[in-house]
Amino acid sequence: MSETFATDVYVARMRQAEKLCAELGTGGLVVPTGMLMKYFTGLEIDSHERLTALVLGGEPTLISPAVDVPTIDPGLGLTQKAWPDGSSPYALVAEALSGAESDGPIVVGSALTADHVLRLQKVVGTDMLLAEEALGELLACKDEAEIAALAEAGEAIDAVHAQVPELLRAGRTEREVAADLERLILERHTSVDFIIVGSGPNGALPHHDYSDRVLAAGEMVVVDIGGTMPSGYCSDCTRTYVVPGGELDERLAAAYDVLSQAQRAALAQARPGVTAGSVDAAARDIITEAGYGEFFFHRTGHGIGLSTHEEPAIAAGNDRVLEPGMAFSIEPGIYISELGGARIEDIVVVTEDGVRRLNSRPRTLDASPEDAS
Amino acid sequence: MSETFATDVYVARMRQAEKLCAELGTGGLVVPTGMLMKYFTGLEIDSHERLTALVLGGEPTLISPAVDVPTIDPGLGLTQKAWPDGSSPYALVAEALSGAESDGPIVVGSALTADHVLRLQKVVGTDMLLAEEALGELLACKDEAEIAALAEAGEAIDAVHAQVPELLRAGRTEREVAADLERLILERHTSVDFIIVGSGPNGALPHHDYSDRVLAAGEMVVVDIGGTMPSGYCSDCTRTYVVPGGELDERLAAAYDVLSQAQRAALAQARPGVTAGSVDAAARDIITEAGYGEFFFHRTGHGIGLSTHEEPAIAAGNDRVLEPGMAFSIEPGIYISELGGARIEDIVVVTEDGVRRLNSRPRTLDASPEDAS
Repeated sequence: MSETFATDVYVARMRQAEKLCAELGTGGLVVPTGMLMKYFTGLEIDSHERLTALVLGGEPTLISPAVDVPTIDPGLGLTQKAWPDGSSPYALVAEALSGAESDGPIVVGSALTADHVLRLQKVVGTDMLLAEEALGELLACKDEAEIAALAEAGEAIDAVHAQVPELLRAGRTEREVAADLERLILERHTSVDFIIVGSGPNGALPHHDYSDRVLAAGEMVVVDIGGTMPSGYCSDCTRTYVVPGGELDERLAAAYDVLSQAQRAALAQARPGVTAGSVDAAARDIITEAGYGEFFFHRTGHGIGLSTHEEPAIAAGNDRVLEPGMAFSIEPGIYISELGGARIEDIVVVTEDGVRRLNSRPRTLDASPEDAS
Repeated sequence: MSETFATDVYVARMRQAEKLCAELGTGGLVVPTGMLMKYFTGLEIDSHERLTALVLGGEPTLISPAVDVPTIDPGLGLTQKAWPDGSSPYALVAEALSGAESDGPIVVGSALTADHVLRLQKVVGTDMLLAEEALGELLACKDEAEIAALAEAGEAIDAVHAQVPELLRAGRTEREVAADLERLILERHTSVDFIIVGSGPNGALPHHDYSDRVLAAGEMVVVDIGGTMPSGYCSDCTRTYVVPGGELDERLAAAYDVLSQAQRAALAQARPGVTAGSVDAAARDIITEAGYGEFFFHRTGHGIGLSTHEEPAIAAGNDRVLEPGMAFSIEPGIYISELGGARIEDIVVVTEDGVRRLNSRPRTLDASPEDAS
């Protein structure tokens, strides 16, 4: 057991999911291991390719490989059904689902892999829904305890960013900086999820990690870092810095001013009742109007919680309406091939009338205090 | 790019897969990121929840999120098609598949997650096959280069096991031993995949990892460790030890003798032309006849390669016939609740007339040299 919250929190979540599944006329819910299992039960289980699944809708059941049963005590009022190696677990899933009121489509978590999806479809039919979509109102809106956990994650990664300026010295390599960052992240998290140190032209690669490239004075460096907290909740924050001792290229400085405005505009747009797509548009329009549209080729943000990337996607055309409790990143970027790039990322949570920023480090290029915004 | 083999190896694998897919009358192959992507292209890509897929059957295509395109140069004669955030990648997949000769079922890799499976089914239909099953003869039989990589992995983990006896001292905790093992594994691998240090009663939990339990003299300790090599191939080896300075419980000593016979019987049974299930039975029958049947509640082994667990499963009832080049573990165990447990695991590869063991550490409880077997 590795529960973050009290037992009644998990029980309440399961009851809410069952209620939603019934209201939607579904045939029940199949929750694979990973983020969703942790959300509903607090259990962190890795059963590799063997199926472990929480089944809700009928009698709440945890389906476990027999080999794992001695190590798993699910509690939470769950019946545990074991399947020995060489047998099929899918009939057990169907049996657990058979108590559901409706025989509508089965709801499955996104992380269920194709081997299990296709074999389960042979038993329960191919009509399936994704939990992250069908149960969106439950899963995408964080409660107070979750928001507190995300705020704690925000403080942890902010404390790392506070030390970044002293790491970025001309002559050091991206890899050396990344090694320092790994140590600093682990001082405040249980694991490192990703480290991006994109200096000079590497800053123009949004999914660069780090290399042996040597930092030079006056270069822009994108530092995007995140980890998982003891609570299971994730941090994710990007700041862009300039290596001291040289002059920043004027084109990059101009682009950064635009980016800064774009990030603020998206923050200002985000509030209950507007669409996720409109938040993306708020940032993108400013960048496009300034002539950098082709250099911003990813969505403005992604949901965050027990996983780094989840719903809602702050992406063009996403009509999902924001609600209080939704937590996501706002992270526009401008990437000019072979010259450099910049990204500014804060995690926010939607409040009753706007958003609360969970990252508070200055968004200035020299990490100097910024004007109130 | 992080290729392990020469370009022509990957190209040949893709052509073989295309040929098999056509012979089976399938509509083509969709390969998600992970082990299968690395097998076909050498690419180690993590696109998180965004779809990245190799599509074979029509024009060989790599579907990539636009944000990743600057960081990915697939080579290998692949066309790269980018999908921007906010658009759907599934039409691109269907387009790439449209060149396939047949419109039969689409073959997908096991690791493709439900979000992609269900959305892709809406575009190409629900009739899908698993690559690991449909292309089993290609994927489950390792070629010479792969076997060499697995042999290298075997030597690496053997070198770690060679140092285990000096780590197991009364008064140390499982966690302290695990920390040493982590360091030793990383001296010879690029990552640690798992560490199990199951002392005393914890040895009876097959999927225990390690705890703060203190080792006592005369206790049995199960040490099951594995990592990933620079080649991408995985190691996995279990030995059972006795903490020096005390007498081992006679019941455990007797059980170990039976286990040792069972593991040798499974090794002797494994050869081309017999079923995977018969290898499981060879070990299980000996354990059952000795009265320990209820204490051996997992399969005898699993395939291994670029992932730790893959086909073929050496499990009861698996009618899959062994062929030269198949690589898998032979790892029976006996677990007596609250008393202790033991497991002996070697990786083997099927040869023309038997198997070659890729682990060579003694299987004696005191790690003393064993008689030729």
